[in-house]
Amino acid sequence: VTAVRIAIIGGGSAYIPGLVRGFIVARDGLADSTLALMDVNAESLALMSTLARKMVAAAGADYRVEATTDRRAAIAGADFVLTTFRPGGLEARRLDERIPLEHGLIGQETIGPGGLFMAFRSIPVMLAIAREVEELAPEAWIVNYTNPTQMVTEAVLRHSGARIIGLCDQHAGDLAAVGAWAGIDPHRFRPDWYGLNHATWTTRLVVDGRDVLPELHARLCEMPDDQLPGGPTRYAFRLFRQFGALPNTYLRYYYFHDELVHQARQAPMTRAEEILSHLPAILDNYRREAAKDRPDPTRERGGGDHGEYAVEVINAIANDRPARFIVNGPNQGAIADFGPDDVVEVSAVVSRDGARPLAMGALPPAVAGLIHALRAYEKLAVEAAVTGSREAALRALLAHPLVRDWETAEGLLDEMLEAHREWLPQFRWEKRRTTSDQ
Amino acid sequence: VTAVRIAIIGGGSAYIPGLVRGFIVARDGLADSTLALMDVNAESLALMSTLARKMVAAAGADYRVEATTDRRAAIAGADFVLTTFRPGGLEARRLDERIPLEHGLIGQETIGPGGLFMAFRSIPVMLAIAREVEELAPEAWIVNYTNPTQMVTEAVLRHSGARIIGLCDQHAGDLAAVGAWAGIDPHRFRPDWYGLNHATWTTRLVVDGRDVLPELHARLCEMPDDQLPGGPTRYAFRLFRQFGALPNTYLRYYYFHDELVHQARQAPMTRAEEILSHLPAILDNYRREAAKDRPDPTRERGGGDHGEYAVEVINAIANDRPARFIVNGPNQGAIADFGPDDVVEVSAVVSRDGARPLAMGALPPAVAGLIHALRAYEKLAVEAAVTGSREAALRALLAHPLVRDWETAEGLLDEMLEAHREWLPQFRWEKRRTTSDQ
Amino acid sequence: VTAVRIAIIGGGSAYIPGLVRGFIVARDGLADSTLALMDVNAESLALMSTLARKMVAAAGADYRVEATTDRRAAIAGADFVLTTFRPGGLEARRLDERIPLEHGLIGQETIGPGGLFMAFRSIPVMLAIAREVEELAPEAWIVNYTNPTQMVTEAVLRHSGARIIGLCDQHAGDLAAVGAWAGIDPHRFRPDWYGLNHATWTTRLVVDGRDVLPELHARLCEMPDDQLPGGPTRYAFRLFRQFGALPNTYLRYYYFHDELVHQARQAPMTRAEEILSHLPAILDNYRREAAKDRPDPTRERGGGDHGEYAVEVINAIANDRPARFIVNGPNQGAIADFGPDDVVEVSAVVSRDGARPLAMGALPPAVAGLIHALRAYEKLAVEAAVTGSREAALRALLAHPLVRDWETAEGLLDEMLEAHREWLPQFRWEKRRTTSDQ
Amino acid sequence: VTAVRIAIIGGGSAYIPGLVRGFIVARDGLADSTLALMDVNAESLALMSTLARKMVAAAGADYRVEATTDRRAAIAGADFVLTTFRPGGLEARRLDERIPLEHGLIGQETIGPGGLFMAFRSIPVMLAIAREVEELAPEAWIVNYTNPTQMVTEAVLRHSGARIIGLCDQHAGDLAAVGAWAGIDPHRFRPDWYGLNHATWTTRLVVDGRDVLPELHARLCEMPDDQLPGGPTRYAFRLFRQFGALPNTYLRYYYFHDELVHQARQAPMTRAEEILSHLPAILDNYRREAAKDRPDPTRERGGGDHGEYAVEVINAIANDRPARFIVNGPNQGAIADFGPDDVVEVSAVVSRDGARPLAMGALPPAVAGLIHALRAYEKLAVEAAVTGSREAALRALLAHPLVRDWETAEGLLDEMLEAHREWLPQFRWEKRRTTSDQ
Repeated sequence: VTAVRIAIIGGGSAYIPGLVRGFIVARDGLADSTLALMDVNAESLALMSTLARKMVAAAGADYRVEATTDRRAAIAGADFVLTTFRPGGLEARRLDERIPLEHGLIGQETIGPGGLFMAFRSIPVMLAIAREVEELAPEAWIVNYTNPTQMVTEAVLRHSGARIIGLCDQHAGDLAAVGAWAGIDPHRFRPDWYGLNHATWTTRLVVDGRDVLPELHARLCEMPDDQLPGGPTRYAFRLFRQFGALPNTYLRYYYFHDELVHQARQAPMTRAEEILSHLPAILDNYRREAAKDRPDPTRERGGGDHGEYAVEVINAIANDRPARFIVNGPNQGAIADFGPDDVVEVSAVVSRDGARPLAMGALPPAVAGLIHALRAYEKLAVEAAVTGSREAALRALLAHPLVRDWETAEGLLDEMLEAHREWLPQFRWEKRRTTSDQ
Repeated sequence: VTAVRIAIIGGGSAYIPGLVRGFIVARDGLADSTLALMDVNAESLALMSTLARKMVAAAGADYRVEATTDRRAAIAGADFVLTTFRPGGLEARRLDERIPLEHGLIGQETIGPGGLFMAFRSIPVMLAIAREVEELAPEAWIVNYTNPTQMVTEAVLRHSGARIIGLCDQHAGDLAAVGAWAGIDPHRFRPDWYGLNHATWTTRLVVDGRDVLPELHARLCEMPDDQLPGGPTRYAFRLFRQFGALPNTYLRYYYFHDELVHQARQAPMTRAEEILSHLPAILDNYRREAAKDRPDPTRERGGGDHGEYAVEVINAIANDRPARFIVNGPNQGAIADFGPDDVVEVSAVVSRDGARPLAMGALPPAVAGLIHALRAYEKLAVEAAVTGSREAALRALLAHPLVRDWETAEGLLDEMLEAHREWLPQFRWEKRRTTSDQ
Repeated sequence: VTAVRIAIIGGGSAYIPGLVRGFIVARDGLADSTLALMDVNAESLALMSTLARKMVAAAGADYRVEATTDRRAAIAGADFVLTTFRPGGLEARRLDERIPLEHGLIGQETIGPGGLFMAFRSIPVMLAIAREVEELAPEAWIVNYTNPTQMVTEAVLRHSGARIIGLCDQHAGDLAAVGAWAGIDPHRFRPDWYGLNHATWTTRLVVDGRDVLPELHARLCEMPDDQLPGGPTRYAFRLFRQFGALPNTYLRYYYFHDELVHQARQAPMTRAEEILSHLPAILDNYRREAAKDRPDPTRERGGGDHGEYAVEVINAIANDRPARFIVNGPNQGAIADFGPDDVVEVSAVVSRDGARPLAMGALPPAVAGLIHALRAYEKLAVEAAVTGSREAALRALLAHPLVRDWETAEGLLDEMLEAHREWLPQFRWEKRRTTSDQ
Repeated sequence: VTAVRIAIIGGGSAYIPGLVRGFIVARDGLADSTLALMDVNAESLALMSTLARKMVAAAGADYRVEATTDRRAAIAGADFVLTTFRPGGLEARRLDERIPLEHGLIGQETIGPGGLFMAFRSIPVMLAIAREVEELAPEAWIVNYTNPTQMVTEAVLRHSGARIIGLCDQHAGDLAAVGAWAGIDPHRFRPDWYGLNHATWTTRLVVDGRDVLPELHARLCEMPDDQLPGGPTRYAFRLFRQFGALPNTYLRYYYFHDELVHQARQAPMTRAEEILSHLPAILDNYRREAAKDRPDPTRERGGGDHGEYAVEVINAIANDRPARFIVNGPNQGAIADFGPDDVVEVSAVVSRDGARPLAMGALPPAVAGLIHALRAYEKLAVEAAVTGSREAALRALLAHPLVRDWETAEGLLDEMLEAHREWLPQFRWEKRRTTSDQ
């Protein structure tokens, strides 16, 4: 049992109750630890820290909860820096979703041009945090949830000496849906899940030491389209049937792009707009709960699994209890398609000395081309996010499998640069270059 | 000087006069050789062989010209088998150009779905030829111009023991345009031209032992858009300016896709339709020339460079005179991005023992993603062409950077399979599968 | 808790009491399992099975002990086939140790020419067992201790469909010595131990999540030679000091070859001769213990750790409890110096679906050359063991870093082929070839 | 035809007459060029420049011959800097040959410890020259003959920006011997000759476009040992027979080490001692010839082929006439076993823009281990030569396949460091370290 200090950057986020619930579950391993919530929004921070303190007290867990708007104070002496902030908030996300749609492309906070601008907003903040970690908590692990998690992680790995593990809990939902369809408890799955964040394929799905993927595939091949599960899983299952490997449900945005653009344009609201419309009610609920002695905020927005995953990772590191997680970090030979320093999403054993990927082999050839193209895009995107070069950003969009067309790329780029201007200090605004600045 | 037997499959093609002109230029190295023209169309064959005989005689060149509709007879004992046929003719090409346009995609005989179906029509015929070569002329080199040349070459390399070099003379036109702009005789260029057929990049352009690409790029960066050359070169130069490397002009179909689709839809005729409309006049001209003692067919349709390139390659092999050519064949370490057996387009030294690629290094990272994706597509396309599996064909389209969208892919695939049905005996037509047949 | 059937090939070996002790320790995970001891030597088998039964009974462990001289009967229906046999016994080992010494080379049962002939004797028997496993227990895991463990494992992986994990407990002794010197409990070490069996390097040595190797190296650099620990560790520590990475103590046979040959020649007995001289006493002791109700054979010859390691691996597989072990198996990208199918020794996570190596990176350049040369030798050695070709065996010796000299290789080869003749049925004896038979 | 300035460092060497003969042969391509002979030994320089001037005049060739002891003056404005010097002269070579023999190892100026110390003496001088080239003739090509040519070339490539091509004409003699045995004019051979300098293998030997190696191998396999050619070729042919590929004759020092050590110890003189004993007569002869109007020095010591090879390379570069040579330079993907920056010996096309290696594929597995080990040694050797660290030198010897034994390495190292002390200013002599200084 190890008492650690965990700085939580984005501590006023609506994800906090779920995260605190995760810490309560893991209390045995982390007794006497400190949760240092930090947020730029003092009001949200006050609400969430109150909730957190009461939840911890009600559960009888031995955590100390601090709250501060001073990031350096939160980070100083931390053993872990959990990052879950969103520069520009839901309003910026709304733009990431809306603007691409107007250009005929999917609008999404991690995929395509939306994801690129989320990276542009997040990476400079994250690199500032990484520099503070180097200075104030050099042994700390950054545990990152800020999206797009893989590019944010890559930026830190390439441009800082801080230690970082990138996380995404997409797999939890995807595997739950497979489990529900297959009649298997998803916690029994041990998947060979690998590729890039939101663009992974699973080529083996071990249950009790046996790969069940071939028989699930055979069963699926017998099933007519109209009996497939609905929602994102439906698209994933059509790809699974075709390719014999299980895709990340986010891959639907590539393979069923036109249909999803059509749906999104028909929809009355984007995802951010929906959340924005529910937010007053959610916050009201949080405020009501915060007023109680034993608050029990509902699991909506940031429920248990999300938070629990990060806490489990922290627990594995803090107590040096090696366990298998899906993480974002350097490939180190795990995926044969990529070099040792390429940042990927892959199953790994996490312990106090970090994440050690498990050898996965090569991606299925029939799907590898798209993943290669995305990897190339991501490197260009990280470079553009760091340098703030419009031309580098254009090259990233020209390399993106969903964009690539010059006219589309350029129109979209200039509109989004303008729309997100206040969040992108790294870009130089004086002049519009017409030629390469490489 | 070596007398050889050269079987020319597609010997009734309108390219023949140009090819014969190439042989006349190279007469010193190939005196007393035999040109065995073979075509399934007896009438065209008669016309072209008459023209060829008279051209050879008028030039005083020592070639024997044979004509046959029996492919085995042409191939038996050949030293070279030059393939330049087009299954389905211009009518099939017209479909390759028209149908994709209706689905919002570029229609083109080598790019995208059009190229895929050209591969589906060409590869079975080519493999039949390769088997005859193995039987009747096992030491012969197949010199292939049949499109899509790289996929056709790959099919032979993977599914036959015959020796083959794939050719494309695209570089001649592209480099001529660069030379015209730069004021440099293009024959002085020694380019590091590599990638995939119709998807190459040139990262060095040596003139008199010095790489002039950096200064051409600097000059181009000073030049406003409205002073760029027109036509395909304009698109290529915009990419050159952006990426610092010189693209194949065919790459415009990827990076300026929407604009080119728009133009193609506006155009009254596709390229095949244009050629079809001119063809009667061209053939009339050929017939008139064939009636003369000293025919001199114009260079229209199959002019000198095209033919001369193949003849130069044959000359280098037949007389074991090593020379540098751009060829399609196994990578063998030349391009760092690909494995040794991947079929690529690359500068190579050709001599009697075949093509030996020159080490090129890696593709520029900013453009490598697209080329990787195309390489993955090509392998799937060759597999589908050989197996005749609709599902494999669907996987190829799903892997194609211009298609990828499932609905688009499936609609297009079924329409094109139906339209080209008579040319695709390898596909099984009985049933429509709804699930994977891998 | 899972009840399994474990066939133990070499069940009359003196290692059995240690192994049984391992099973007793692990009884909670393997209750009701069957230990099917098999040996060709009925007398030893009777002794060891009696001892095993009484030890199990005395400990109150729920194991059933069977004994048979029929290998097929032991293997039929097994979940695990533990192999720990020695074709030719200690007498053959004596020859492996003696003959090379006479040629000026180290004599050793796993290193150099001695190891080659141990491979020649073991591999055909092992492949016969693998075929029986394929037929009679196709889902079983072979857990191999038969030496040379890596080459034996490679032979099964290349020439059979049976599942196999190769083990060696060398690391236990090596790490214990390091721990004793460093004052750290060796069970706290989590090493990056990788390379080839008996030729590994450890580049990180994590204790409580922190790599202690740099500070151990610094401490060692301060220490004069005469204060280094003695025995094999002394040699290893001199290499550690020089290279900054921790070598397998067996690497002393390469880097201190002349001194060790000198010592071995001075020594009155080889290791096998020593064991042979003690064996009567050991067996007497075993017989005395076997006569007791509660036997407690001393740990000499086959003590706890050796047996416990295999039992822990079986436990991790049988109960699907993933844990980290050092195993011999396919590289799968773990060591950057080798291809995915190269068989290596590497840290891996073992669970019911087998061993999954952890990414290790590259070997230190200053020591990688020797390891590359050994890997090349091992492939040739396995080929020679399977084909029984004298020329292939000569090529293996010519590739071996300790031999390489043709005259030495040829003299040694013929003498050892003759000496081990009865154990090498795969070699053809009719004629002596003077030229290559490849 | 291009007039160039060629600085010849080592211009007083006995190789000069042969080199001048090479320039006379190539006069058509290099008319009006300047040969600037430079040597630290004014007397030899005077003799050789007199000879050179008279030879050129007698042949009516348009070369200007300069002579200077000022290296900077020779290099300033040069187009080529031909390096063929030997720091320490034949006396140092004698030590390279003698000292290892006393330690039971082959003594040789390029192989083993002798080669290591030749590298230690040559590399600092070569790097000084490279720096002068960067300053005084930045566009010049260094054409290096100074041994060990590959390590000298690697040092310049890693530690300077000067352009360099390493040469060795070993292949000329080796291929001549094969041609003599096979009855084929060796100038018709086009070999796939690749690996490391003095450690190459030839896997294809093309004559008139056909690989004749398989039939030469078959013929050789029929031939009893006592009918093999004698001398170095005998050893090479025994390896050829065994491995099916043709080795560099220098590989005999690895595979027939003991026999050659025995011979060398029996021999009354080493090679350097022989040359030293003949040198007075050779110099007398040169002096006599220099006194004549039309000197015709015999071909002994530095005959035609040696010089002609360098001149042909210079000609190909100066006149941008691409031609195939065997060179030492960066691998760039040509040999699959090595990385792009590894320095190797390989067939390449040389033109004004340098050497472009031809793709060779992988080394034969049965011999690759030794070559890998040598490559690892060479990198360590270059590092030791540059840093002047005794510990790095010890690591190089410990990595050398012929040494590796610590005691041997350390004894030899200290004796050779002492013996060559005056030529090794880069080594620090104050103290003897007992621990690692990495």
